[in-house]
Amino acid sequence: MSKVNAWAQMEPKGKLVPFTYELSQLSPEEVEVAIDNCGLCHTDLTALNGDFGLPYPIVAGHEVTGKIVALGDVAKNKGLYIGQTVGIGWNKESCGHCDPCLNGDPHLCINLKTTILGSHGGFASRIKAHWLWVIPVPEGIEATEAGPLFCAGITVFYPLLEYGVKPTDKIGVFGIGGLGHLAVQFAHAWGSEVTAFSSSPAKRAETLKLGADQIVSSRDPLEWEVLKGKFDLIIITVSVALDWDKIIAMLAPKGRLHFVGIPFEAIPVSVLSLLIPQTSVSASPAGSRSAFNAMLRFAARHNIRAMVEHFPMSKINDAIAHLESGKANYRVVLDADFE
Amino acid sequence: MSKVNAWAQMEPKGKLVPFTYELSQLSPEEVEVAIDNCGLCHTDLTALNGDFGLPYPIVAGHEVTGKIVALGDVAKNKGLYIGQTVGIGWNKESCGHCDPCLNGDPHLCINLKTTILGSHGGFASRIKAHWLWVIPVPEGIEATEAGPLFCAGITVFYPLLEYGVKPTDKIGVFGIGGLGHLAVQFAHAWGSEVTAFSSSPAKRAETLKLGADQIVSSRDPLEWEVLKGKFDLIIITVSVALDWDKIIAMLAPKGRLHFVGIPFEAIPVSVLSLLIPQTSVSASPAGSRSAFNAMLRFAARHNIRAMVEHFPMSKINDAIAHLESGKANYRVVLDADFE
Repeated sequence: MSKVNAWAQMEPKGKLVPFTYELSQLSPEEVEVAIDNCGLCHTDLTALNGDFGLPYPIVAGHEVTGKIVALGDVAKNKGLYIGQTVGIGWNKESCGHCDPCLNGDPHLCINLKTTILGSHGGFASRIKAHWLWVIPVPEGIEATEAGPLFCAGITVFYPLLEYGVKPTDKIGVFGIGGLGHLAVQFAHAWGSEVTAFSSSPAKRAETLKLGADQIVSSRDPLEWEVLKGKFDLIIITVSVALDWDKIIAMLAPKGRLHFVGIPFEAIPVSVLSLLIPQTSVSASPAGSRSAFNAMLRFAARHNIRAMVEHFPMSKINDAIAHLESGKANYRVVLDADFE
Repeated sequence: MSKVNAWAQMEPKGKLVPFTYELSQLSPEEVEVAIDNCGLCHTDLTALNGDFGLPYPIVAGHEVTGKIVALGDVAKNKGLYIGQTVGIGWNKESCGHCDPCLNGDPHLCINLKTTILGSHGGFASRIKAHWLWVIPVPEGIEATEAGPLFCAGITVFYPLLEYGVKPTDKIGVFGIGGLGHLAVQFAHAWGSEVTAFSSSPAKRAETLKLGADQIVSSRDPLEWEVLKGKFDLIIITVSVALDWDKIIAMLAPKGRLHFVGIPFEAIPVSVLSLLIPQTSVSASPAGSRSAFNAMLRFAARHNIRAMVEHFPMSKINDAIAHLESGKANYRVVLDADFE
């Protein structure tokens, strides 16, 4: 049983403080990982703010990269080995025997366990997960900055793979932040025509460099008039309320409005506006294990990288303040520096 | 140029009265049909009520069956012949050269012309349509009662075909009326497990006979508790407001809530409730020409029939009153009896 050093929230609105605990004994299907880096995601802030109602202390962090240090007896036969560089994202365990698991959709497992809702996450020195969710980092991916691929990356890549998006399709991406800057890169490498909807004119040159074919205001529906009926897929990475009717009107026949960000308020959907052009509204969480492998190989081959700023994990409170201020340059990665 | 006898609405809220006009000259791609029968659909009532803002006089009717009496020069080479028994539904003309047309989706044509929005429809002795939308009635389909297949039938059949529904899937149908009683038959013949959501306990035995495996109240969400996470597809054929959150909660992972009825008010969709089980909300209008052919062959092979009550077309005002009273036994068909 390993002793773990971590950064925990001990009470509502408190700063994170050092906290130690012991991992329970490794079960046959589990893998123990020594954490090198962990991305900092907005969902971690939601957890730390107490919005998920988790019991304290809370150890967040679900964009882990590190090295395998122990393998359960079953996990040994699954292509993993001690010292291997791996990542762990939002999910940490699926049952393997429910219908979605058997269908190759373990991210929809009805007994799913996640990395931070119900156990301690990646702002720590060690973590355990079921072998299926301990995912080898392939050659060509720089592990120290790969954490965000395991949450933000898979989340925006998965819809391209899952919904049969074609390189001839036109894709819109709303929000060019942590998720969106990866969505633009993936959609561009996919061969599709990419329109970035952004509220940050300052990021214009950078967004074009990431692969956007054009940039349009995400706030001014007047700019959308000429885009009516254009998009086969619009990916929403933001959680703010937008003019949904006018966004749906930008879908091409059989187009899809797909959410990976979660707006706080329900989306009012006019059925008639979906019916005439036969469009749909959908959402997805992270992605299947097979999609993870495809995403990582695709990212390596196309040199798709999360843009990250590094903080030592001991400066995690500074890192959180930086992310909350809106000043983070896309994504923050914490580098474990426990003694 | 043929003279047409018809039943028209001459002013708001008026009764339908006899009305005559001439068809414009047959163009090369058009087909002229002598109408034998025409179904009476709720959408006709909407048109006659003035809710589409059509100019008067209005001749509604878009579930036509009849016989070809004239073929344009191009239409002659499309497998059609004089005297052939055919049907015409909601659509009457598509352009053939826009992207959806070229993709085999002429029902999504960007230059689509419909049977009653912009021209006179099927409560008449004659009608013209583009050859693509003049659809042969195959052997095994009784033409005099087939009108509803050309609107209600295709509308509920199309989602089964389009979205890859499997015989192992579980399907829910909300509303067992004109559309729903066909949806239950199609879904049952498809091999799927069918749950009918109905507000008419009186129709119970009949609905089971149509092929429903079980019947559940469409009004009492308490009955839905045990159905959480069950359905791969839920088809909404009604236009009333329902408890959409609780209906979405009945979707299985990757399930689809699909509208063919059009609720008057926007549907409030909680993105989180879609995201976790990766479900979607969609809607579709009628179906492609290829889906029409597949539907008619499938209906013939499985003996799927619209349950209809016949009225002579000269009693059209009585027929409308009957449908509006809610007493119609599923579907009304008018039999042309012009002198």
